[in-house]
Amino acid sequence: MNRNELIQTIRARQSFLCIGLDSDIEKIPRHLMSEEDPVFAFNKAIIDATHDLAVAYKPNTAFYESRGSEGWKSLEKTIAYLKRQDNLFTIADAKRGDIGNSSKQYAIAFLGKMDFDAITLSPYMGKDSITPFLEYEGKWVVLLALTSNPGAGDFQALRVGIDNDRVFEKVLQRSPEWGSTENMMYVAGATRADMLSYIRKYVPEHFLLVPGVGAQGGSLEEVVEHGITRDCGLIINASRSILYASDAGDFAEKARQEAEKLQKRMAALLRKHEIL
Amino acid sequence: MNRNELIQTIRARQSFLCIGLDSDIEKIPRHLMSEEDPVFAFNKAIIDATHDLAVAYKPNTAFYESRGSEGWKSLEKTIAYLKRQDNLFTIADAKRGDIGNSSKQYAIAFLGKMDFDAITLSPYMGKDSITPFLEYEGKWVVLLALTSNPGAGDFQALRVGIDNDRVFEKVLQRSPEWGSTENMMYVAGATRADMLSYIRKYVPEHFLLVPGVGAQGGSLEEVVEHGITRDCGLIINASRSILYASDAGDFAEKARQEAEKLQKRMAALLRKHEIL
Repeated sequence: MNRNELIQTIRARQSFLCIGLDSDIEKIPRHLMSEEDPVFAFNKAIIDATHDLAVAYKPNTAFYESRGSEGWKSLEKTIAYLKRQDNLFTIADAKRGDIGNSSKQYAIAFLGKMDFDAITLSPYMGKDSITPFLEYEGKWVVLLALTSNPGAGDFQALRVGIDNDRVFEKVLQRSPEWGSTENMMYVAGATRADMLSYIRKYVPEHFLLVPGVGAQGGSLEEVVEHGITRDCGLIINASRSILYASDAGDFAEKARQEAEKLQKRMAALLRKHEIL
Repeated sequence: MNRNELIQTIRARQSFLCIGLDSDIEKIPRHLMSEEDPVFAFNKAIIDATHDLAVAYKPNTAFYESRGSEGWKSLEKTIAYLKRQDNLFTIADAKRGDIGNSSKQYAIAFLGKMDFDAITLSPYMGKDSITPFLEYEGKWVVLLALTSNPGAGDFQALRVGIDNDRVFEKVLQRSPEWGSTENMMYVAGATRADMLSYIRKYVPEHFLLVPGVGAQGGSLEEVVEHGITRDCGLIINASRSILYASDAGDFAEKARQEAEKLQKRMAALLRKHEIL
């Protein structure tokens, strides 16, 4: 999905919601355990119940790898099912990054073989760990800038050199030239919404993927206030608050209700900012 | 494998060689393609031919993930086979790192389910992305400090704050207190061997995992000169120079010859530094 298609999808669905498929076999409803692949059955039900309210889905590879090769099969089935829906932006939340010949293999895995639209990457190893992913026409890199966890303060927030910028600002200064607004996005955590203003100084046009609304406590309205652009420019992720809204037979219905609450607030914000 | 056992293994084998199982299905000998699992057949032959010369093996997950769930099966078979050998230190070269509840899942995947001794992690997301791995008794985190690729200059080498230390030095200042010399190691690239002296200022006792000797051009002798400790304190990785020494029927024999060359040089260096 290219940038223009993404923007059109946001306008059409009046939503910039990403649903994070952090599908934990320990947390999904117990009645699904009799399914051949409980995690895929769970994901399928969540996708069926919410795909008209969301623009993006983001499986987090950690929750699949913890079940080994069986988990990878669930991931493969999930992305294949997502690709069969209309106009969904798919993000592998993998946070990879390695020397060039290894990153090339990760690119094959996620952008080639599984055909995700995008993958999250860590910037620590620099340019040549990222560029192999940018060689995939029509695919996206979502680079970690400022994350939503407490540890973001440890290295991302260190002040660098004589200009006193922080490490995450250096990432935002240097990396845009590796690609373009058509193939790069940035992760910007919602738990520090005011930081989005700093981030927008460096990347006024890039899409930002914002985790941390919901279970992690970030405010949707504050994120929009600080981060929205004329093209929206935001994809806001919620995972646990939607996935685990109920652990009973009504889990998909409750997930839809949670997603719809967010979508309605997003529609109002899109109207307020004259994007609809 | 704990620190003492690792040191004893290094002394017994007169080696601190790690063999990186970056096993690329495009590069392994063609005659193996008739095997049910060509990559596992390749790894098994390499392990059989070299396990008395190496102390550690390091499968790089990128080369398995590029083959999807089938690749993960090869990885699972490989670690299971490594665990059946005597006294081998096993490292999942996965370069993971995510918020706590996701890192916990990666820890289950690699240190729990597959039972690797160690996993490589990226420090970008800070302490709470690392500590879930340190909760596994007897297991190790190998944290990226200074990597061996050109992009290491982009962010790792940025000068920070008034004391002018580089980002990788901040990683080495802050992270040791998250664990101990018994459960943390650091990745330090061999392509800048003189940097190992800086690294030793911060972590005089920790083991360093040093990639970049061989195909990437680092010098074994220089690495040892700058990085060795009284307990050796080094695990030096070679991948391509051993794995792809031949692409014919003699590949395992040629791999052994390459591994043996390195082991002999390592034995001499251990004697020179009075560790044997």
